[in-house]
Amino acid sequence: MDRALANVNPALIEDLVDANRILYHLGVVDGFGHVSARHPADSSRFIISRSMAPALVTADDLMAIELGGRPVSDNAPTPYLERFIHGEIYHARPEVVAVVHSHSASIIPFTIVREATLKPVSHMSGFIGEGAPVFEIRETAGTSSDMLVRSPELGAALAKSLGPHNIVLMRGHGSTVVGLNLRQAVYRAVYAEVNARQQGEALRLGTPNYLTVGEAVESAKANDGQQDRAWNLWKRASQQSGLS
Amino acid sequence: MDRALANVNPALIEDLVDANRILYHLGVVDGFGHVSARHPADSSRFIISRSMAPALVTADDLMAIELGGRPVSDNAPTPYLERFIHGEIYHARPEVVAVVHSHSASIIPFTIVREATLKPVSHMSGFIGEGAPVFEIRETAGTSSDMLVRSPELGAALAKSLGPHNIVLMRGHGSTVVGLNLRQAVYRAVYAEVNARQQGEALRLGTPNYLTVGEAVESAKANDGQQDRAWNLWKRASQQSGLS
Amino acid sequence: MDRALANVNPALIEDLVDANRILYHLGVVDGFGHVSARHPADSSRFIISRSMAPALVTADDLMAIELGGRPVSDNAPTPYLERFIHGEIYHARPEVVAVVHSHSASIIPFTIVREATLKPVSHMSGFIGEGAPVFEIRETAGTSSDMLVRSPELGAALAKSLGPHNIVLMRGHGSTVVGLNLRQAVYRAVYAEVNARQQGEALRLGTPNYLTVGEAVESAKANDGQQDRAWNLWKRASQQSGLS
Amino acid sequence: MDRALANVNPALIEDLVDANRILYHLGVVDGFGHVSARHPADSSRFIISRSMAPALVTADDLMAIELGGRPVSDNAPTPYLERFIHGEIYHARPEVVAVVHSHSASIIPFTIVREATLKPVSHMSGFIGEGAPVFEIRETAGTSSDMLVRSPELGAALAKSLGPHNIVLMRGHGSTVVGLNLRQAVYRAVYAEVNARQQGEALRLGTPNYLTVGEAVESAKANDGQQDRAWNLWKRASQQSGLS
Repeated sequence: MDRALANVNPALIEDLVDANRILYHLGVVDGFGHVSARHPADSSRFIISRSMAPALVTADDLMAIELGGRPVSDNAPTPYLERFIHGEIYHARPEVVAVVHSHSASIIPFTIVREATLKPVSHMSGFIGEGAPVFEIRETAGTSSDMLVRSPELGAALAKSLGPHNIVLMRGHGSTVVGLNLRQAVYRAVYAEVNARQQGEALRLGTPNYLTVGEAVESAKANDGQQDRAWNLWKRASQQSGLS
Repeated sequence: MDRALANVNPALIEDLVDANRILYHLGVVDGFGHVSARHPADSSRFIISRSMAPALVTADDLMAIELGGRPVSDNAPTPYLERFIHGEIYHARPEVVAVVHSHSASIIPFTIVREATLKPVSHMSGFIGEGAPVFEIRETAGTSSDMLVRSPELGAALAKSLGPHNIVLMRGHGSTVVGLNLRQAVYRAVYAEVNARQQGEALRLGTPNYLTVGEAVESAKANDGQQDRAWNLWKRASQQSGLS
Repeated sequence: MDRALANVNPALIEDLVDANRILYHLGVVDGFGHVSARHPADSSRFIISRSMAPALVTADDLMAIELGGRPVSDNAPTPYLERFIHGEIYHARPEVVAVVHSHSASIIPFTIVREATLKPVSHMSGFIGEGAPVFEIRETAGTSSDMLVRSPELGAALAKSLGPHNIVLMRGHGSTVVGLNLRQAVYRAVYAEVNARQQGEALRLGTPNYLTVGEAVESAKANDGQQDRAWNLWKRASQQSGLS
Repeated sequence: MDRALANVNPALIEDLVDANRILYHLGVVDGFGHVSARHPADSSRFIISRSMAPALVTADDLMAIELGGRPVSDNAPTPYLERFIHGEIYHARPEVVAVVHSHSASIIPFTIVREATLKPVSHMSGFIGEGAPVFEIRETAGTSSDMLVRSPELGAALAKSLGPHNIVLMRGHGSTVVGLNLRQAVYRAVYAEVNARQQGEALRLGTPNYLTVGEAVESAKANDGQQDRAWNLWKRASQQSGLS
């Protein structure tokens, strides 16, 4: 394991490995996507896997990265190209301590259709609030980019689109969610995907009656108190069926 | 196990644990949702898991709760916040002996689109009858609630929406089904979800030709006689692939 | 095993057990549905499981039934209520030697929407031909039946709707496919479901360009020569993941 | 193993077996479909399984075939009827070294609806470029063919429809993708299917904002550098759950 993580609480390390496995188990990430936590003792750093498929991550694959994108340790392994998603959001949002980036399947259509805004269809997705903003990379990278958030500048533009929200969609790419703790960020990544699938269905049936802003706020608060119920299930299920 | 369950038939305890596992195996519940049975010897109580993910429930997690919502035993574990769904339905419907509450995926769109009423598309779902009523929590809790049925008052409002039906949808939340026995309630929870998926598809193809009321009544009666065929399969399948 | 099956080729018995397991493995049947083969030495009888979930069927559960619906052996176990589906089709179609009845999910919508006819979208489904007929049980059983094909009269009406086709849809119920051999009937049951899913998607995209009648006939013929490739895969996959 | 493969790098043989297993694991092929690699030492030959289900392929099932379609070795096993798909594309496109042909489910609707063109919805599918061409076999084989690419003439017509693209759809049949290496071809087959599913959803939500040609080119280039991340995951996952 990265020596820069020597003093990190083992429970956080374990949760971060579990988060990688859970997100794969639930189909939020496949070979791509990543999850990070802010370093608990140094808010200018975050912890994330080296560049690899989340389903295969172990504690030895975790590394510390500075918010600006530089790996902390000498001889660090290859980091994710898009680590700037994490660093710039941690920079812009001091209260955020966890970030999940994914290409989950049902979210993609909502990123490319202007008429459709991701909104909460049930109390499980109250964290989506009034509707998810969409990051258009063309505004910063032009019309012929490789779509990747591969620089601090692009990461900052993404963080600006995120604003005070809990989730930001990324046009033709996926989404990024944030949390006040790691389990909350994982919960949000899972239920953003679930919500997208159900909202798509609802839009085909007629005119959806979304949560009010008040309902969204209150149900999100109530769910925060229950999130370990889901986490414990997902941890057990992903361990039992996970890759070894 | 809760001492208040000491005299309950072990076969019912086993069925209730199996019901939790089956509903998870078939995707009706995930980390959330719950299933209960009325106490066979005391109709003023029901049996349900403590607050936890259904897939992990064992006999030791079951507890007795009074219809009003108070756990029977001193030192009882934490009960589900929404136990009032169960208690108030048992209160309003003396013949009901089992209740399943879930957020199953295909039902949600039908709860938030006023133009769409859940109706039976095949003989497997005759129990839906003329169409499922929808519970609007705003009428009781106002427009900024956390959406949870967290009080006797809200439970009673839900029971009123259910009326004499076998299923009630809950706007932006999920559904609740009832049964004259536990296996029937599980069957109904499973096929309500199946029906919603198929009805959504049918509505996209054109104008569905639903069961008549007579067909719904008669096919539901016929299926009641066959429900153990499904139960035995589901029990075996959920045991083989279940979490341990 | 039923003594009336004592002289049946063990390879057919094995195939019939495998057919039950395969149809469950591929999601064509769940707790309900059934598959039969005509008795090779007595065309007035067919072989089918006793009334139980297909996934759990073993050779000991198979029984011989007369085309009229009467179990051959004394002390025979309980037969399926809808055995008349099989008997009357074998009666009306002497060349048919295998029948599958199922409620597979994607077929149901096509049974209840008059504007939508199941037609072959690819060469894998050429056996559907010019389009699948739909059996309306109301014409025989009236508007308040339990929807089940529970008599010779209803079986004969279904066989009449089937006519010379390879598949007949059943309104609000499911479908029945026939084959000139058991593996062909299983293949058709699997790909009818696949075709329904893909046709539904195509209809949402625009106007499908279906196979011509000539293409349907020729591709069905070509696929018949390849069906063991699928069978061998399905057998292995269903054995590896099947219920024990 | 075919003696004509005696001098082939064992790593390529292993990758080709893995490719068969991976494509089954991810649902791109079922009992049908095939993947090949050009012979590294003799560009007039390619390596492919004998006629069987991809999920069951081992190194012993691989065989060498001349681009014209003739098996290289005497006593060669039965080759795929549609080996001309591979041979004629290798003939027309000297830079191509791998080909995958499949009937993956979400692609089929795009092959039969003229109004719908498969286009890249996200950076994972940049290889689709400006949109996938569609091969209409009727133009060569007439209106009553069995739909199979069973001759050099039909293979050449398919290669002509493919032109300089990375993927060609086949009306009422499936698709064929090519790669500059085997892993790239597998990646493309997987993400073509993913893209079709997401594009179908997007079209139901409104008007999709597809990748620009520049974005498609650049994102495809970027992904080529990451493809082993997916391959390593898929290999592990398919081995763990694969058929033995």
